[in-house]
Amino acid sequence: MYKNLLTLLFLLGCFNLMAQKITGFKNSNTEKQLNLEAAFDAEVNPENLDEWMKKMAAEPHYVGTKYGKELAEWMAKEFKSWGYDVKIDTYDVLFPYPKLRLLELTAPIKYTAKLTAVPVEGDPYTNQGEALLPSYNAFSTDGDVEAELVFVNYGIPADYEVLEKKGIDVNGKIVIAKYYGSWRGIKPKLAAEKGAIGCIIYSDPQDDGYVQGDVYPKGAFKNKTGVQRGSVMDMPLYPGDVLTPGYAATKDAKRLKKEDAPTITKIPVLPISYEDAQPLLEALDGAVAPASWRGGLPITYHIGPGPAKVRLKLEFDWQLKPAYNVIATLKGSQFPDQWVMRGNHHDAWVHGANDPISGMIALMEEARIIGDLAKKGETPKRTLVYCAWDAEEPGLIGSTEWVEDHKTELQQKAVAYINTDGNGRGFFRAGGSHSLETMVEEVAESVMDPQKNVSIKERAMARDQINGGNDKFELYALGSGSDYTPFIQHAGIASLNIGFGGENAGGEYHTIYDTYPHYTRFKDPGFAYGATLTKTAGRMVLRLANADVLPYAFSPLKKTIDGYLKQITKQCETMRNEVEKHNKFVRKNLYDLAADPKIQNAKPQRKEAVPFLDFSPLQNQLLHLENSIEAFNQLDLYDLSDSKLKALNEKLQATEQSLTSKEGLPRRSWYKHQIYAPGFYTGYGVKTLPGVREAIEQKNWKEAQDQIQKLSKTLATLDTHINSLILIAK
Amino acid sequence: MYKNLLTLLFLLGCFNLMAQKITGFKNSNTEKQLNLEAAFDAEVNPENLDEWMKKMAAEPHYVGTKYGKELAEWMAKEFKSWGYDVKIDTYDVLFPYPKLRLLELTAPIKYTAKLTAVPVEGDPYTNQGEALLPSYNAFSTDGDVEAELVFVNYGIPADYEVLEKKGIDVNGKIVIAKYYGSWRGIKPKLAAEKGAIGCIIYSDPQDDGYVQGDVYPKGAFKNKTGVQRGSVMDMPLYPGDVLTPGYAATKDAKRLKKEDAPTITKIPVLPISYEDAQPLLEALDGAVAPASWRGGLPITYHIGPGPAKVRLKLEFDWQLKPAYNVIATLKGSQFPDQWVMRGNHHDAWVHGANDPISGMIALMEEARIIGDLAKKGETPKRTLVYCAWDAEEPGLIGSTEWVEDHKTELQQKAVAYINTDGNGRGFFRAGGSHSLETMVEEVAESVMDPQKNVSIKERAMARDQINGGNDKFELYALGSGSDYTPFIQHAGIASLNIGFGGENAGGEYHTIYDTYPHYTRFKDPGFAYGATLTKTAGRMVLRLANADVLPYAFSPLKKTIDGYLKQITKQCETMRNEVEKHNKFVRKNLYDLAADPKIQNAKPQRKEAVPFLDFSPLQNQLLHLENSIEAFNQLDLYDLSDSKLKALNEKLQATEQSLTSKEGLPRRSWYKHQIYAPGFYTGYGVKTLPGVREAIEQKNWKEAQDQIQKLSKTLATLDTHINSLILIAK
Repeated sequence: MYKNLLTLLFLLGCFNLMAQKITGFKNSNTEKQLNLEAAFDAEVNPENLDEWMKKMAAEPHYVGTKYGKELAEWMAKEFKSWGYDVKIDTYDVLFPYPKLRLLELTAPIKYTAKLTAVPVEGDPYTNQGEALLPSYNAFSTDGDVEAELVFVNYGIPADYEVLEKKGIDVNGKIVIAKYYGSWRGIKPKLAAEKGAIGCIIYSDPQDDGYVQGDVYPKGAFKNKTGVQRGSVMDMPLYPGDVLTPGYAATKDAKRLKKEDAPTITKIPVLPISYEDAQPLLEALDGAVAPASWRGGLPITYHIGPGPAKVRLKLEFDWQLKPAYNVIATLKGSQFPDQWVMRGNHHDAWVHGANDPISGMIALMEEARIIGDLAKKGETPKRTLVYCAWDAEEPGLIGSTEWVEDHKTELQQKAVAYINTDGNGRGFFRAGGSHSLETMVEEVAESVMDPQKNVSIKERAMARDQINGGNDKFELYALGSGSDYTPFIQHAGIASLNIGFGGENAGGEYHTIYDTYPHYTRFKDPGFAYGATLTKTAGRMVLRLANADVLPYAFSPLKKTIDGYLKQITKQCETMRNEVEKHNKFVRKNLYDLAADPKIQNAKPQRKEAVPFLDFSPLQNQLLHLENSIEAFNQLDLYDLSDSKLKALNEKLQATEQSLTSKEGLPRRSWYKHQIYAPGFYTGYGVKTLPGVREAIEQKNWKEAQDQIQKLSKTLATLDTHINSLILIAK
Repeated sequence: MYKNLLTLLFLLGCFNLMAQKITGFKNSNTEKQLNLEAAFDAEVNPENLDEWMKKMAAEPHYVGTKYGKELAEWMAKEFKSWGYDVKIDTYDVLFPYPKLRLLELTAPIKYTAKLTAVPVEGDPYTNQGEALLPSYNAFSTDGDVEAELVFVNYGIPADYEVLEKKGIDVNGKIVIAKYYGSWRGIKPKLAAEKGAIGCIIYSDPQDDGYVQGDVYPKGAFKNKTGVQRGSVMDMPLYPGDVLTPGYAATKDAKRLKKEDAPTITKIPVLPISYEDAQPLLEALDGAVAPASWRGGLPITYHIGPGPAKVRLKLEFDWQLKPAYNVIATLKGSQFPDQWVMRGNHHDAWVHGANDPISGMIALMEEARIIGDLAKKGETPKRTLVYCAWDAEEPGLIGSTEWVEDHKTELQQKAVAYINTDGNGRGFFRAGGSHSLETMVEEVAESVMDPQKNVSIKERAMARDQINGGNDKFELYALGSGSDYTPFIQHAGIASLNIGFGGENAGGEYHTIYDTYPHYTRFKDPGFAYGATLTKTAGRMVLRLANADVLPYAFSPLKKTIDGYLKQITKQCETMRNEVEKHNKFVRKNLYDLAADPKIQNAKPQRKEAVPFLDFSPLQNQLLHLENSIEAFNQLDLYDLSDSKLKALNEKLQATEQSLTSKEGLPRRSWYKHQIYAPGFYTGYGVKTLPGVREAIEQKNWKEAQDQIQKLSKTLATLDTHINSLILIAK
C-alpha cells in the first residue's frame, strides 16, 4: 500500500493530502476518502481477473444455457462471500434459437452458404462443435424468401438516397448489407420499410477482416469464416422482452402474441461471413458500386439487382427462457435508501471473453475489494447495488425487465448507475449524464494509466489533441448498446458508461473467436486495463457512496445542451443551404449536364425548402437556466446542517428525472429522456435533443416546432428543480 | 453545312453573325472567320478517325520499330496529299530494350514473377506474342540486386515521412511501390535517394483494377496480368535524349557516355502486375500499413522489411534508335513567319489506340480539313505547323530534340503550340499559358458537346460546380507528361494541352490492352469526342492563324499569378502553424502519450520553425503589373494601322518568353519557365512559381528568398514587355 500511496501523492503533485479537493466532499472528509481509495487500489489483483475470465469464458453462455445459469449462481455465491446480500431476479423472456438456416445462391450459378466458422489452431475453445451457438440475428422473423439480390452498402438512410439517385429500387428484392455504419438492426428495419423481403448482413474484410490487420489466429481480425451474431430487435422502439413492452416479464405478466410484437423484424435476416458473401456479391451485375461502398473483397462491387438470385429460409425456436439477473447489495451505513448502482452483463453470444466478461470481472474485483474494506469497517455511507445482467445480447433484456420492474423504487433511490461492458487496452472513454462530468473528470485525473506514467485523463486528452481535438475533458452522450439504456433513457437515472480501448482492435466481436486466448493475446494482456477499470469504477462508486453532497455539477450539463442546440441550429442552416444549392443545380440542369449518359441515374427533383424554425423558447430557457445554475453554484453546500444536507441530497438524487418527460419521444414513448436517445435510424448511435433533432432530420417541421416547445418545458422543469435545490440550501 | 451553321447560330443565341465578337478579330473580319469555322465543322468526319485508328493501332510502334517508321512515312504522305510541305526530322536517341527481366521472391518462399500479360478473348491485338514490347520501365539502369523487401505505398515524399515516423529505413532494401500518387519516375528516384538498391512498381487493383470496375475484357479496367510500361528517366531534371541534354541528338552530336547520363535511374526498376505483386506483398510482415496505404488485394498489407526477400535482375540493350518527327507546314498567306503549331506524338508503348492515336487522328482530321479549305482558297494568314512526334513515351524525346534543334527560330516565330494526346468521352479540359485563357474560353463556348445539347464549356462548368467549384473557366497549369513540355518549359512558347475525358476510365494505359477494340468499346465509341477534339483544336488553330491581333489576354495571367502567390503565402502560414503545433506536442510529450507502446514508432523530434519570408518584392511587382495591364487593356488595338498591327503582333508573339529566365530553375537549368514547371518530386504534377514554391517545400529558406527576388525580376521583365507593347500601340 505504501508504494501506491506514494504514486498517488506524486500524481497529485504534492505531499499534502489535505490540499487535494474532491467535489462533493467536505475538506474534513477528504483525507479519509483518499486513504480509502488508496487502500482500494492496493487490493486490486489482476490474477483474480485472469482466473475469473478463464472460468466464465470457458463455454458458451447465452441466455437460457445451463452454463449461463451456473455462472449466475456462482457469481451470486462469490458476491455473498464478499459480504453482499444477493438475490437472483429472474424474468421469463422470449428468445429465439435458430432451428433452420438456409442461404443459397440460386442463379446465375449455385452456391450454398456454409454458415459455419472454423476452429483454429491454438484456440481449443473454438473447437466446441455443437455447443457454439449457430450464427444468426436474434429476433429476425421466420421466413422463406427467394428474390434477386441488391447490394446496399451499409444499408443506412444515406445509402438508400444513393440508390434512389441511381433509380434502383429494392422493393421485392433481398438486400445484402455490410456490417458497420450503424447498429445492425437498422439494416433490416430500413430494408423492410423500402419493400425488401429479406436481408443478409455480412462482415466485409475492409471493416474488421484482413484489410484491418492479420486475421485470427495469426492476428486479432476476422478470418474468412467468422460471423458476427447479434440482435436485430427494433430496440430504438423499445428494448427488452419483445412481448412485455414497458413492464416486467414476470412469470404471470400479460404478454403480447409473438405475431403482434412490434420489435421483431418484418423480414428474415441472416448474418454471414465474407467467405459466404463473396460468391453472392460476385454474381451481382448492374451499376458498379460507388467508391465509398466498395469493400475489401477481390471483386468489382456491383449493386445489382441480379442476376444473382438468392433463397433465404429461416426458422426459429421461439421459447420463453429464464434470464437471471444477479443483484448484490451492500447496505449503506448512513444513507441506505440512496443507491449507487453498478452493472455489467454476464451473458455472451458465445464465450464472450471480451464481451462481456472483461468488464464483468473488473466489476467483480471492485465488489470484492469494497466488500473486503467493509468487513474492515469501511462500509460506504450509501447503499451499493452490483448487478450482473443476463440476456443483454438479445436486446438489453435482463436489465430492461429489471428496471421496468423496479422503476418507482429506482427513481426514488438510485443516485447513479455506472455501466461497463467489454474492456481492453488503450484509452479511457466515458459517456453519460453531463451532471456527472466533473466527478468523472476528477476520477480520471487520479487514476494512473498502466502503460504510461500519467493519469488516464492525460493520456486520453493527448490522443484527442493529436486527433485535432481540444484539451477539454467531455463525456460523450449515451445512445444505446448496453445496459445503461433502461436506466438513463427510460427511468431517468443519472448514468455512466465507462471503459478502456483503442489499442485492442479485432474482429472477434460476437463470433466464436471471442475467447480467452484471443483476449489475452490481443485485447488486454495481463489484465492491466481490467485492473485499471476496477480502480476507475471503484473510485467513482466510492465517491458517489461517501460524498457529503452528491457530486452533480450543472454547469457542464448546461454547457453541453448549449452545444447540442448550436449543432442543431447549424444543421438547419446547412440543410437549408444544401437544399438551395440542390434546387439551383436542378433549375440550371447541372446534374444532367454533368451526368454520364451511359450510367443509369434518376432525374433529380427539386426539394422542399427548409423553413426557419423558432428556437427562441429554447434559447431563452437556457438563459434562465444559466442564471439558476449560477445562483446554485454560489452556495456553500459544505456548510449546511446535516438535515439540510440530507434534504438536499434527496432532492439532488432526482435531478436527472427532470430531464425526462412522461409521454416520452414521438412514436416511441418508452424513451423518456429529452436530452439523449439512441437514433431511430442509427440504433446505437446517439441523437441529442432527440425530439427536436430527429424531427428536423426527418423534415417534419411541424413536429420540430412542437418538440422545441416540449424541450423548453423540460428545461423549465430542470430550472424549477434547481431553484428548489437553492431554496433548500439557502 | 446548313445544319451545322444553324446549330452554331442557336448556340450563339442569336441569328446575327455580326453580333458575335471574337477576341483578336476586327468586327469586319469576324463574319468571315465564323463562316470559315462553320465550314470546317461541316467537314469533320468521324469515319476517318475510325479508319486511321484501325490502321495506326494495328501493331506495336514504339520508337525504333519498323511499323513506327512505316506510320511516320504514311502520315507524311497523307499530310502531303492534303497540301502540306512535309519533312521527317530524324534524331538518333538512346533507347533501352529489355533483354533480361528476372524478378524472384527468394524468401520465405519461392516465386518467380511471370511478367507477361495474357491475350484476352475478343481482342486479337493482345495475341501478337513476341511483337508486344515486354513490360519494363525505360531508362531503368541495368542491375542485379537481392535484398529484403519494403512496401512504401506510392513511394512519394509523404510516404517516406510515414516510414520515418515508424522508424523504418529502406537503406539497402528493395522497395515495392504502387503506381499512381505521382509520376512513376519519382518512385525509383526517391527510393535511390533513401538508399534503396532496387524498385518494383506494381498496379494495385484499387487504383485501376477490379476495385474501380470490371476488368478487361468484360470491362475497361486492368486484369491481373496487365502491366503499365513507362519511362522512369529523371525528366524533372531534363527530358529528351539522355545523352544530349539541352541540344539536339543529331547524327554527329557530341554525346555523354551512358554512365554519365544523369537522367538514367540509379537503381534497377521494374513494373509488374498485381498477380505478380500479391505473392511478394503477402510474404511481407512487420508493421501493418496505415489505412491509406492499403490497396485492393485480399491480403493484410504489411510494410516489412522482410521476411520477404527478392532478387531483381535487369539487362537492357542500349542502342541509338532513329526518332522520326513528321513536320507538316502550311505556309501562311499573310504572315508566313508567324507559326501556329499543333502537335501530338505518334509512338506508342504497344498499340496505343488511346495513347496517343486517339489524339493523333483528331489532329490529322484537323490538318486534312484545313488543307482542304486552303485548296479552296481559305489559306490561313499565319503559317501552320503540324507535328507528329516520335519517342514521346520514353521521355518526350522526339519533341524535345526538335525544340532544342529549332529553339531560336521557334522563339522568333512560334505564336503558340497546341498539344493533344490520348482523348476520350467526357469533359473538356485545357491547361496552359494563361495569356491564352480568354481565347480558349471563347472557343469552348462555341463548340457543342456531342452528348448534351450545350457547349463543351457549359458541360465542364456544370461538373465543376457539382464538385464544389465555382463557375469560372480556368486553364490548369502545365506540369509535364506530354510534348508541350519543351515548348513551354524550355523555349517559352505559349502552349496549350487540350482534350476530353472523365467518362473514359480504364486500366489500359501503357499495357497491351490499349487497343482498337478496347478504345471503341470503352473510351470513345463512334469517335464522337475525337470529332469534337478536331473541332475544338481546329477552331483554336484557325483563330490564332487569322486573328488581326494575336489573342493573348494578360488580365487572366496576372490574376492567376496572384492566386499562386496567395497559395504560397498561405502554405507558409500552414507550415508554420503545423510546425508550431508539432513542437508543442513534442514539448508536452503528447505523441508518446497517445502512441501504442506495442507499435514501433520513432521518437518525434522538434522541427525547425518556419521563418517569415519577405514577399513584398513580388507583391509590389504585381501591383505594377496590374497597372500596366490596365493601361494596355484601355487601348483600341483594332484601330491600329497595318504596320503598327504587324509590329504589335511580332512583339506580342514573344510575350511568354518574358516569363522565362536564362539560368532556369535551381539545379535544373533546362527548365526556363518561372511560372510553371513539373515538380522535382512530383514529376508530371505541376509546381507553379516553382523556384519559390519548391524552395519553401524543401525548407530551403535562403533559396526561397533568392527566388522571390528572381521571380520579381521576371515579372518586371513582363511588365517592361507590356509597356513596350503599349508604346507600339499608342
